[in-house]
Amino acid sequence: MMLSGVLFIGTQRQRGGAHAFKAFDPTLNQALVPDFYEADEEQIDAACRLAAAAFIPYSQRDLAVRARFLRQIGENIAALGDELIERAMQETALPRARIEGERGRTIGQLNLFADVVEQGAFQGAIIEPALPDRRPLPRPDLRQRQVALGPVAVFGASNFPLAFSVAGGDTASALAAGCPVVVKAHPAHPGTSELVARAISQAVLQSELPAGVFSMLHGTSVQSGSALVQHPAICAVGFTGSRQGGLALLQQAQQRPRPVPLYAEMSSINPMLLLPGALQQRAEKLAQGFIDSLTLGCGQFCTNPGVVLACEGEDFDRFVQHASNALRLKPSATMLTPAIADACEQHTAVLSALAGVERLANGQEKQGPNQGQPHLFTASARDFIQEPRMQNEVFGPVSLLVRCADQEEMFAALQALQGQLTITLHLEQQDQRLAASLLPLLEQRAGRILANGFPTGVDVGYAMVHGGPFPATSDSRTTSVGATAIQRFLRPVCYQDLPNALLPQSVQN
Amino acid sequence: MMLSGVLFIGTQRQRGGAHAFKAFDPTLNQALVPDFYEADEEQIDAACRLAAAAFIPYSQRDLAVRARFLRQIGENIAALGDELIERAMQETALPRARIEGERGRTIGQLNLFADVVEQGAFQGAIIEPALPDRRPLPRPDLRQRQVALGPVAVFGASNFPLAFSVAGGDTASALAAGCPVVVKAHPAHPGTSELVARAISQAVLQSELPAGVFSMLHGTSVQSGSALVQHPAICAVGFTGSRQGGLALLQQAQQRPRPVPLYAEMSSINPMLLLPGALQQRAEKLAQGFIDSLTLGCGQFCTNPGVVLACEGEDFDRFVQHASNALRLKPSATMLTPAIADACEQHTAVLSALAGVERLANGQEKQGPNQGQPHLFTASARDFIQEPRMQNEVFGPVSLLVRCADQEEMFAALQALQGQLTITLHLEQQDQRLAASLLPLLEQRAGRILANGFPTGVDVGYAMVHGGPFPATSDSRTTSVGATAIQRFLRPVCYQDLPNALLPQSVQN
Repeated sequence: MMLSGVLFIGTQRQRGGAHAFKAFDPTLNQALVPDFYEADEEQIDAACRLAAAAFIPYSQRDLAVRARFLRQIGENIAALGDELIERAMQETALPRARIEGERGRTIGQLNLFADVVEQGAFQGAIIEPALPDRRPLPRPDLRQRQVALGPVAVFGASNFPLAFSVAGGDTASALAAGCPVVVKAHPAHPGTSELVARAISQAVLQSELPAGVFSMLHGTSVQSGSALVQHPAICAVGFTGSRQGGLALLQQAQQRPRPVPLYAEMSSINPMLLLPGALQQRAEKLAQGFIDSLTLGCGQFCTNPGVVLACEGEDFDRFVQHASNALRLKPSATMLTPAIADACEQHTAVLSALAGVERLANGQEKQGPNQGQPHLFTASARDFIQEPRMQNEVFGPVSLLVRCADQEEMFAALQALQGQLTITLHLEQQDQRLAASLLPLLEQRAGRILANGFPTGVDVGYAMVHGGPFPATSDSRTTSVGATAIQRFLRPVCYQDLPNALLPQSVQN
Repeated sequence: MMLSGVLFIGTQRQRGGAHAFKAFDPTLNQALVPDFYEADEEQIDAACRLAAAAFIPYSQRDLAVRARFLRQIGENIAALGDELIERAMQETALPRARIEGERGRTIGQLNLFADVVEQGAFQGAIIEPALPDRRPLPRPDLRQRQVALGPVAVFGASNFPLAFSVAGGDTASALAAGCPVVVKAHPAHPGTSELVARAISQAVLQSELPAGVFSMLHGTSVQSGSALVQHPAICAVGFTGSRQGGLALLQQAQQRPRPVPLYAEMSSINPMLLLPGALQQRAEKLAQGFIDSLTLGCGQFCTNPGVVLACEGEDFDRFVQHASNALRLKPSATMLTPAIADACEQHTAVLSALAGVERLANGQEKQGPNQGQPHLFTASARDFIQEPRMQNEVFGPVSLLVRCADQEEMFAALQALQGQLTITLHLEQQDQRLAASLLPLLEQRAGRILANGFPTGVDVGYAMVHGGPFPATSDSRTTSVGATAIQRFLRPVCYQDLPNALLPQSVQN
């Protein structure tokens, strides 16, 4: 079935009333057919009103229906077959294996949330029966459970056209929580978005749910995103993107007449700490693993290792030499969009011009349009501590090796770190005491702490945290990946002395 | 031991460097000795820096030590004896039985959080062992737990000089979570605050904890509160007070370079719905219970029933008549402060002047200074729906009876309601179908739903929710009362492939 460029206002397909725009193939450096159309204000309003109307009916449906709906979305995505894979490859320049893997992950996380819904523990039922004889006062019957927040706006991310986009983590967890979803598709992959929206829309019909459970809008303008965040019906927002974009939306969410939570996953440089024993025993292997992680997917991951900290010395010199050599072999690669490729080049230039930053090595020259070239820089910990701009994320295959004079200076550099999605420790048995002394500080600075691995690759399960202190995210209290992400779209309600028949099932006798 | 008017900067007692002020006896309408002194900027900074320095050592101490510390605070408060009770009575005009009951509740909630800490479930440990053979990718070892957010600023409330003040719910839950606390005492009860601060400070010494675990500052100015909320070391804020004050601090917390969560419990009119069967069977009893709840403590409760909704008719007329008669017997009573008594009078005048609002009855005339007089008003649901100012909280013994033409109009009035701490249903068997149809909407509008009771009186246990949608609070995702309040000061961290010896105890093998 051909792409038609439409919006999904509930289960209705409509041509957007605002500007037309086109998808873009960054490899061929040319626009793709067909035209897509941005939603106008009335269409944004219509989608949000439908979501509000669907909220109570959807949130009151049996959990079994909700779980079946999530699985059905996954089945429908799988049934899109190669058309989805090929369109996503065209729109993102990401290779087939990556897109296929991401499709598996996207379906996997829909199924995970279906499991979570079926298990029911997410409702956090707490039952305290009445104690009529308690002194000095009797205790009423008190029961608590979590209820859905209300309609959720989801902003698709550019770098995961499936797993963090129309049917991505935020959509899956919001639907699992009982919240209707209005997605603003990312304009970098509107065709992929349309295909996935079809899969969800079809599942809404198959599950006989109210139409407003899901809508998908297109929008390239700042205004369309703002209108969505500020719509009175919207009760929470999920966003993955730049710090600038996230902060702008955060301010809008906070300054509404009724403020709503906005979960923005923004920027992280994912520090790797090479402790002395690890550096001594496997500097070369660490260097190769680091460069492979750094350049994977042209560095276009939120968890890309953008800074490495280690103590100076012979072992570190070996690491630097091997990392530099490994990087020189890495090709430039096509990035997701021309704008991202431009920003990578600009931000690399800004980083390289900071006082104290020295260039170590470059990857291979660009061979085509919209490519990102790998770069490796170094700076002293002293300069790193004094220059917060060294901590600005460069979205791409660019990293900074920070040389610490000693462990004390490494500790000071860690203290100067802003909030991160991940921090990785490379350690051997002999480093454990040092690692133990650092751990409480690392817990303060990051949402996930890894040992002897690389931060790229985020497993979707029950224990994952993909989140972290500001500015990694706007709200460190939740995760955007993994089963506990459902909690971001819930709030507690207490029932006092309600007749059993009136109580929601999860807190009945 | 005499009151000395000092601040507690950690375990150090210091005279505040800014203006002197006095406590005030609202019954006698006169100032109380001694002078208290506001903290200056350096003292606010010192308290916050000490809290930051105490954070890691305190949060890393054994949970048994943390639990013992909480119980010790309670024991020390009990040991203050009658000096505490009498000073609190003087500063608040609240009667002995109420203050003694509140002391019991304060100690009870410290002990509850000690239990919560000992049980350890608040850490939310999730363990997913590695699956090295998983396809297509092996699963790493993943473990999640909740960690403390960091130093917390707590603003004492005027209306609960013990239970929502220096050692109140926010302090207890923050300390339980592992967060140091800097309290800004409410200037309406600085002597009570000093006594309680002594009890906590002594417990810090007895438990051999770092000094910065607890500080208490005085401040009457907006600036001193702002300086605390904006201090870089502060990671979360708890506030109970007016909507105006809460919103001002919320904006400051959000506009910091690093935004932090601010939990403001602000205003609620706690609607009571009288369903037809209940009204028919017990209009008189309902009327008496309502008026008793409305005038309890001169209406100075967050959960005071400020609006009643019912369908017009003979039964409602009986209710109105009995409620009016019961109210006329109720005396005026001394309020917490002159400012609160003035505001009550002003806000009552504003309410009574709104188009469509008619006066039903007044309580007995004021007999002394700083008193609040009970008032009962009525309005049609149509006017209530069209005039959002009828929903502004009048802090005091003032309520509005809203007459609905029929159930449809009652539903419309409920839809027009702003967020509430509580909504109460009065119902009989025959009302259950109607109640069931309303419940999903009530869940959207309130944090606690009661049947056949009165909202005043908040039980402190595991299932309680004292929170709700904006503007009842700034963040509906948490509660300020009950065991789950600990969650507001926690965030998740994931540990990937960490050696077992390095893992925090709660997620070890």
